[in-house]
Amino acid sequence: MDLHDLPTPALVIDADALDANLATMAAARPGARLRPHVKAHKCTGLAARQRDIGHRSFTCATPREAVGMAAAGMGDDLLVANEVIDPRRLSALAALDGDARVTVAVDSEETIRAAELAGIHSCLIDVDVGLPRCGCDPADAGKLADLARSSGLDVRGVMGYEGHLMVLESRAEQAERVAESMSRLVAAHDEVGGDIVSAGGTGTYDLHDGTGVTEVQAGSYALMDTYYATLGLPFGQALFIVGTVISARPTHLVADVGLKALGMDHGNPAIDGAVVWFCSDEHVTFAPAPDVDRAPSSVGERVRVVPAHVDPTMAMHETAWLVRGDEIVDRWDIDLRGWG
Amino acid sequence: MDLHDLPTPALVIDADALDANLATMAAARPGARLRPHVKAHKCTGLAARQRDIGHRSFTCATPREAVGMAAAGMGDDLLVANEVIDPRRLSALAALDGDARVTVAVDSEETIRAAELAGIHSCLIDVDVGLPRCGCDPADAGKLADLARSSGLDVRGVMGYEGHLMVLESRAEQAERVAESMSRLVAAHDEVGGDIVSAGGTGTYDLHDGTGVTEVQAGSYALMDTYYATLGLPFGQALFIVGTVISARPTHLVADVGLKALGMDHGNPAIDGAVVWFCSDEHVTFAPAPDVDRAPSSVGERVRVVPAHVDPTMAMHETAWLVRGDEIVDRWDIDLRGWG
Repeated sequence: MDLHDLPTPALVIDADALDANLATMAAARPGARLRPHVKAHKCTGLAARQRDIGHRSFTCATPREAVGMAAAGMGDDLLVANEVIDPRRLSALAALDGDARVTVAVDSEETIRAAELAGIHSCLIDVDVGLPRCGCDPADAGKLADLARSSGLDVRGVMGYEGHLMVLESRAEQAERVAESMSRLVAAHDEVGGDIVSAGGTGTYDLHDGTGVTEVQAGSYALMDTYYATLGLPFGQALFIVGTVISARPTHLVADVGLKALGMDHGNPAIDGAVVWFCSDEHVTFAPAPDVDRAPSSVGERVRVVPAHVDPTMAMHETAWLVRGDEIVDRWDIDLRGWG
Repeated sequence: MDLHDLPTPALVIDADALDANLATMAAARPGARLRPHVKAHKCTGLAARQRDIGHRSFTCATPREAVGMAAAGMGDDLLVANEVIDPRRLSALAALDGDARVTVAVDSEETIRAAELAGIHSCLIDVDVGLPRCGCDPADAGKLADLARSSGLDVRGVMGYEGHLMVLESRAEQAERVAESMSRLVAAHDEVGGDIVSAGGTGTYDLHDGTGVTEVQAGSYALMDTYYATLGLPFGQALFIVGTVISARPTHLVADVGLKALGMDHGNPAIDGAVVWFCSDEHVTFAPAPDVDRAPSSVGERVRVVPAHVDPTMAMHETAWLVRGDEIVDRWDIDLRGWG
């Protein structure tokens, strides 16, 4: 089948661009030095590619993602890098024991107690490294580790996500601030112990030499988006939403890729050679860029829309189509969606 | 079951607020004077309530929505108020013949030809009334109607969506501009003929007396969001995403309702008594509002998050839970999602 036969909007992955991104990252952070974050793609088919290139430990944002990864045979070392207190979901994670090794993030007495009650075996202490989200005060990390150990949990180390430092204009400033942020995590680790110091993301994957971080939780690098593209990282755009032009006027064109097919929290998508005006539920209105010398598109033509944020975009689609040029070479279910 | 037993994030509809919204609208625009837009909720359970209160004609944005509405026995008069050129999807609509009456929007020779080839029987001429999206130049409407009729299509009238006028600061200016916009639609209708002049939405539902519009396509009024709430319309907030506080610090709290559970194109959600700082994939970070005198929330507490945009929020969830107070009284599948 050809790209032009797909019903639209269709989520499409450029297979060669994906492979290049995975190879580039695996060269920089091979094996266990990367713990790929599956929240970015929610797709066991893509995770299997990450496993095949050498990464056998994975990061998940939801219990649903971890359960799905275990069912797909990739449960060697799953970190749920988020606080969970739902007893049923924690029990579902604990029930994976034997098939999968699951570690959860904890940052409070309540999350430790919930993990203990559900029969979870392992945790990381989640530490606030400057992003105001989950994570304990670094000064409390040792105390929480003691509580977790006395509750029967194996404390494997610490994690801390410097999400506020993923995209900065100056790379030099970014490196400096990441180092400062990680010094808080390492100080917490001194009190906590364990083998793991887990942090980072696509925007900082190459800034952790010498920070004490043992593994990076990057996810977006595999597919990329216009937000991370501003950083000039060595990862190419591998994700597109293919649409069909459904209306054409002298002033503007409309394709059937709307805000129900695109993560919009980072703003409008991009279309090569065009200026995007706005998105509606099922439409993107755009015009040829002023400097583009080509015939205007016409009704029925296909366009490739590049999302501004990969993670929520993936979560909106059921299927990812892999292409080489215009040829469809494979399809993957986006099977880790929802919360279960 | 009680609201506090639901796994979170959970999409919750206040049953009484919904009923009040449906009654208020049905009083203002009874029966066929409203053609409720199902794109706002993507839920046949909710559409059935709209049918039961007297509306038997519905608006859809996608073929998938129309096929689902027909399957649920609500196919009396379905308008796909969007341009479709996919031959398989048009054929699926044509195949509903006998079970459902389907009318499609057309705004070009290509869309008319595609409808004709697929065996579609009825269309509206979609007219540009000022929103740069689909819709023909009003001056071309009569010519397109002639082409459609000569192609064997029943041309039932015109539609035009004044989406750029849904939310204006001044209601007086809004009324004036809606009247001006609709004068273009009525002029096109003079050339096109047919019984239907379809337009409008929640933000302008009460501004069409005397405009010549025969039916309004409102959808958001049933559930509402923070965006439409700024207008002071007589519709109350009926939609919430219920979350659980998973992390609590002296400065801020984090609940498990993130941007994968919320349409974000209209910005951050709201939480009563709180200031929302930002959303991540699976988190909302917030703090008590400065003027709120209450104990800070603690881990495990439930919060109600109000989306900024109802339509894409509904499309992100599989299930809607209906509640009265904290009691769950029903559940609906959000069964019209995706594109099929």
